[in-house]
Amino acid sequence: MIRISFEQVQERLTLVLRSLGFSEERAALSGRLFAETTCDGVYSHGVNRFARLVATVRNGSVDPAAEPRTISRFGALERWDGQGGPGNLNAHAAMARTIALSNEHGIGCVAMANTNHWMRGGTYGWQAADAHVIGICWTNTMPNVPPWGGTEPAIGNNPLVIAVPRANGHVVLDIAMSQFSYGALESYRRRGESLPVEGGFDADGKLTRDPGAIERSQRLLPVGFWKGSGLAVMLDLVAATTSLGNPTNQIANDPLRETSLSQMFIAINPGMLGDSARIDRIADEVVASLHRSQPIEESKPVRYPGENTVRLREENRRLGLPIEEAVWAEICKM
Amino acid sequence: MIRISFEQVQERLTLVLRSLGFSEERAALSGRLFAETTCDGVYSHGVNRFARLVATVRNGSVDPAAEPRTISRFGALERWDGQGGPGNLNAHAAMARTIALSNEHGIGCVAMANTNHWMRGGTYGWQAADAHVIGICWTNTMPNVPPWGGTEPAIGNNPLVIAVPRANGHVVLDIAMSQFSYGALESYRRRGESLPVEGGFDADGKLTRDPGAIERSQRLLPVGFWKGSGLAVMLDLVAATTSLGNPTNQIANDPLRETSLSQMFIAINPGMLGDSARIDRIADEVVASLHRSQPIEESKPVRYPGENTVRLREENRRLGLPIEEAVWAEICKM
Repeated sequence: MIRISFEQVQERLTLVLRSLGFSEERAALSGRLFAETTCDGVYSHGVNRFARLVATVRNGSVDPAAEPRTISRFGALERWDGQGGPGNLNAHAAMARTIALSNEHGIGCVAMANTNHWMRGGTYGWQAADAHVIGICWTNTMPNVPPWGGTEPAIGNNPLVIAVPRANGHVVLDIAMSQFSYGALESYRRRGESLPVEGGFDADGKLTRDPGAIERSQRLLPVGFWKGSGLAVMLDLVAATTSLGNPTNQIANDPLRETSLSQMFIAINPGMLGDSARIDRIADEVVASLHRSQPIEESKPVRYPGENTVRLREENRRLGLPIEEAVWAEICKM
Repeated sequence: MIRISFEQVQERLTLVLRSLGFSEERAALSGRLFAETTCDGVYSHGVNRFARLVATVRNGSVDPAAEPRTISRFGALERWDGQGGPGNLNAHAAMARTIALSNEHGIGCVAMANTNHWMRGGTYGWQAADAHVIGICWTNTMPNVPPWGGTEPAIGNNPLVIAVPRANGHVVLDIAMSQFSYGALESYRRRGESLPVEGGFDADGKLTRDPGAIERSQRLLPVGFWKGSGLAVMLDLVAATTSLGNPTNQIANDPLRETSLSQMFIAINPGMLGDSARIDRIADEVVASLHRSQPIEESKPVRYPGENTVRLREENRRLGLPIEEAVWAEICKM
């Protein structure tokens, strides 16, 4: 593990993106989003994911020049076509528009079809919260989780993000509908560790904590068993029907060909209804009630979603972003 | 178990509600919602829950005459005060207004403070889907689940409902954020059964399938461990900050005094963007893909959320609502 400054990482990624055909402005924004993701401690979806983005640009799954287009609008609701552009730039533009709609109408929504992997979903939650509005967004994915009662991947792990702005630190949740991602299973297996809780079924259909057994069976567990399975179906249905985009079952089951996704962006702006000071007090009170609650281990107080991010962000900004040497070497050769 | 006709149940409940001070129209609507809930097979929240509603009217937690009031509005977003009225009537009115907002603005939202238990959340999802729009709503609750990493109830199990309209049968999900409710734990314990999956921690902090051990420890498991805990926090935060209502930590931890809840109602109306036929086709395709997927047991095909409801609704309409004799006898004496 080496430490590279935020600026150096962003600059290098921007340079690579320029060479792939991204405009100067778009390369800089994408480079920044990747660097911020690693800076925030979401290592799986930051710099570590950059090579996969490059591969999907090279194989034509992602068109670096494509910009999203508004297909239709009605009041506070818009339907967009992502036109196969870079997923993080598309999502960033969609959330920016959603925020603007919420400033105009109190609530706003953009549903986007034909877009690509948005990398870290939390990015667009932080974006909304930084603009002082509640952000809710989700994406569908390729089929990578069996539905409850089924044996083969047929639903997506469809990450869901909810962000609430707070002067003393936004509260941001970013969760996929599988208990663990394939990336997480791989990390546990490489470290020779068991999962902390059951994460899927083995080849015999038994719940297991063995990451390798789940990778082989491809039977990841949805969060909350039947509940997360149902939630994944609903997120897919809402995104696909509102955007007129692909539902999960029409998305190629291959990380390098996983394209034409459907995504939802919702922003709610309670501040337009007045009484912002009281809104802040309520959010602070919820956070305080979590901090007051009796922890299982005295040394590990209960945390709110996103609490750790602020700490890691500060630390990584100060010390430089922690990046595996091989990953950085590969990026420097691009 | 006896079978009583839908009409007879609704009539009897309406009569009881009239005697408690509900207006004729409001008594009839509430009676219908209770009967529909039992008819749809959600027995825990229909006729079986009626005695608890009556008790909360009698102890002053629920004011039968109170009607919700709009506090402020901005475009497609409204903040309501439920004024301590009956939770199901308040929620029904809020969702009706949310649907109207979505017809006007493409998306609409009502955030309601100071309301009461809405009984079956799914009711308002079916209501939205029957009006041809997507419905998303949730409520907070008294603290009844420990947050992840904590030992004492500090977050709510905050039911979340998502409904997508479909000509061939709406898709409706209605899930609480605990893996099992206290009602479900009690049912398993009375039948002398283990839970089908781990549902909480015993007194020693070990995950267990023993329903009685979880009732004693009060350490219910959030769906997906840390994920459902985080989701419950976010649902509470969004509802309380948007409505300016109570967050979970300010709600009395007593089923008969659980009042002044905060709720969110969102409706999305993709039909206003055109292409309704294609919307229907996409929804049908998602349902078909679930039905096509390989089941664990050949005799149990994978189902979509709400699929069972349609079957039970038809059966219970035809045969009469199944009600425990003692429950019906109690209602007949009210």
